[in-house]
Amino acid sequence: MIAEFISVGTEILLGNIVNTNANYLAVKCAELGISNFYQVSVGDNEDRLSQTLNMALSRSDIVILTGGLGPTKDDLTKEVTAKVLQRNLIEDARSKERIMKYFKDRKFDAIPENNWKQALIIEGSLVIDNHNGTAPGLIVKTDESNDVVSHMNPYNNKVIILLPGPPNELIPMFESDIIPFLRKLQPGILYSEMVKICGIGESKAEIMVQDLIEQQTNPTIATYAKNGEVHIRITAAADSEENGKLLVKPLVDELKRRFTTAIYTTDESENLEDVVVSMLAKHHIRLTTAESCTGGLIAGRIVNVPGASAVLGEGFITYSNEAKQKYLKVSAQTLMKYGAVSKETAAEMAQGAASVSESNASLAVTGIAGPDGGTEEKPVGLVYIGCTVNGKIRVKECRLKGNRQKIRDLTVIYALDLLRNAIMEEYGI
Amino acid sequence: MIAEFISVGTEILLGNIVNTNANYLAVKCAELGISNFYQVSVGDNEDRLSQTLNMALSRSDIVILTGGLGPTKDDLTKEVTAKVLQRNLIEDARSKERIMKYFKDRKFDAIPENNWKQALIIEGSLVIDNHNGTAPGLIVKTDESNDVVSHMNPYNNKVIILLPGPPNELIPMFESDIIPFLRKLQPGILYSEMVKICGIGESKAEIMVQDLIEQQTNPTIATYAKNGEVHIRITAAADSEENGKLLVKPLVDELKRRFTTAIYTTDESENLEDVVVSMLAKHHIRLTTAESCTGGLIAGRIVNVPGASAVLGEGFITYSNEAKQKYLKVSAQTLMKYGAVSKETAAEMAQGAASVSESNASLAVTGIAGPDGGTEEKPVGLVYIGCTVNGKIRVKECRLKGNRQKIRDLTVIYALDLLRNAIMEEYGI
Repeated sequence: MIAEFISVGTEILLGNIVNTNANYLAVKCAELGISNFYQVSVGDNEDRLSQTLNMALSRSDIVILTGGLGPTKDDLTKEVTAKVLQRNLIEDARSKERIMKYFKDRKFDAIPENNWKQALIIEGSLVIDNHNGTAPGLIVKTDESNDVVSHMNPYNNKVIILLPGPPNELIPMFESDIIPFLRKLQPGILYSEMVKICGIGESKAEIMVQDLIEQQTNPTIATYAKNGEVHIRITAAADSEENGKLLVKPLVDELKRRFTTAIYTTDESENLEDVVVSMLAKHHIRLTTAESCTGGLIAGRIVNVPGASAVLGEGFITYSNEAKQKYLKVSAQTLMKYGAVSKETAAEMAQGAASVSESNASLAVTGIAGPDGGTEEKPVGLVYIGCTVNGKIRVKECRLKGNRQKIRDLTVIYALDLLRNAIMEEYGI
Repeated sequence: MIAEFISVGTEILLGNIVNTNANYLAVKCAELGISNFYQVSVGDNEDRLSQTLNMALSRSDIVILTGGLGPTKDDLTKEVTAKVLQRNLIEDARSKERIMKYFKDRKFDAIPENNWKQALIIEGSLVIDNHNGTAPGLIVKTDESNDVVSHMNPYNNKVIILLPGPPNELIPMFESDIIPFLRKLQPGILYSEMVKICGIGESKAEIMVQDLIEQQTNPTIATYAKNGEVHIRITAAADSEENGKLLVKPLVDELKRRFTTAIYTTDESENLEDVVVSMLAKHHIRLTTAESCTGGLIAGRIVNVPGASAVLGEGFITYSNEAKQKYLKVSAQTLMKYGAVSKETAAEMAQGAASVSESNASLAVTGIAGPDGGTEEKPVGLVYIGCTVNGKIRVKECRLKGNRQKIRDLTVIYALDLLRNAIMEEYGI
């Protein structure tokens, strides 16, 4: 089964956006065992889009088009696809309903005329609701016996999938509706498990699994560096999920032996903050954050987990020295003697955050994110993370590379990982 | 002049890497006034690559291939291109020299055999030295009178450019050698300006510029939705930047007339938090944040701006009712009578944040990000944003759609925009 991706949008051709959708689809199709031979980006242009779609239909089984489903005049992916497939556009009652509700919920008194365009669907297509925007997704199969227009269908046994361009609309639809649909098309499966590791660099992790990679046949093993984390995917081709699991298990067990507690999850859907929040909840730990250079990103990451209110009641952003003293009771002497970016200050911030809030855990960060503020002895990228669990204090020094954004993102990951390790030490794994 | 990009590499099709090269080339070609109609990614496969290259040569003037110039036998971009152009591969003395030096400088005692493959060039091509790797870049023109093999050339008046895939090799070569080469081919430039708008939906913004889009010739106008914002790009083809500016200005002025203060910048490189931070700095305003459902993301966004310490000294994450009372002095009665998610609570949070921190501005957020916690009368997505500037309080009610992540991201944008508008009202534009 061969899939081809067509990313539609002049903004891609002008370089206004990086085409991350194609990469997302490539990863997902690889996981599904669906081959991808071509990825094409084309503008919002009728002739070039229909030429591209015809070419794709002539050489691929599944064509996934992303983008060009918006309400504006230059969005014409749906219109061109209908033309190429010689089908009509018809109004979909449910989509119209949904769009009306979408605007009503936002208290729009009038719905922009051009949004009705988004309620039109390709005749005989399966509609995928969009819960994060107005444009529905569409699945068109050209081989359905009940296909009202198949007799005049220029292509047979093809699947055309139209999805909205914005990743926050595309990804949820793909996960909830498209993946299950594609699974049914693809006989045999690729079963894969993900081992997520934090606290070990990519090159070191690579070396630790080199021999496994060299021996790999089925299952295969691949490592991905992910901003402070390393993800290792083990993928087995099998006739059933059960057999896939059996093939993957020995390799996952071997990785657990090698990486032990650096592995924070083997659950694909789980990320670092999910793990930390469930550890906190499990042990009835209340966390308080105190952030300087991250300015709220750590708490923001934790609050991203539904139900975080059970483990995080409050947090402080203490960017100035005054705020560190006023809210966290960091002593003026410490700030004077060791500076705001020091292990001593990080420790006092963490202890202060816990005591002021009467929490049994705290996470504090102070560092130099740059681009300015670095010195010979305290360079940009120097970050101290303080963590207390049940009064026991830990401070970690990090020397990070990258721009301001990257240094702050890495700090969030390392802070969460420090807390994770502290909880393991306190409560066991 | 039309350029087409072919990104060669199975790792792209497997989703192992995001294709940032195509985006880089798109940006550069747009700056050069060279149109880009197609971007294709294809694997290291002879048949599919030559099919793709033939297609590109049939519809574009310039074809830029990236990747597949490595030493291994699955790298065959050069070989396939030579075949398609019916030219031979010949050894290039200078490249051989350079490769020897490259390894000698790195203290290799022996040069891997297969690296000699990289000293082979396409007959009649211009060699571009690679100062960051071994593979040379190649420029092949099929219209040269002195072209030794043009008489048997299947394509005429085409330019084929082969570049290495790694960005750290491709980008320096492109800047130093390819851009000057392309400039000579392409008289004139594309000059574009970006108008960034917040607080107006894409559909509404589209309607407001529909007539301009319909009339467009040169300059052209295009709108892009960007998670709570709308960006409008005005692009003019001109013989010089000066004339480009002159062509673009009337349209930008017209947009300013229509969108007035909804435009937060016309500076491509500036984003919403940059604008808010510089407005705060300009008027010597110190901001304090008080965040519930965003849990620190607003402060985190502001601190992302270098020098934010001048305008933000502290912030509160008050996720629990207790924290709202303890740190922000929100009254128990208000929480009881109106609930934590209410305009009254948002107002008291904002006022409390300002007074406790003795700041002259504050931004407070309370809302239901979901997925749980929604009710009939207070649904998921209901968010109240409170803002004070010089004691004057404003509260905005938002009804947002999407998953937890999206609701929180939109809340950050709307909060920053509320503050921006409040400052304009207080201090003028």
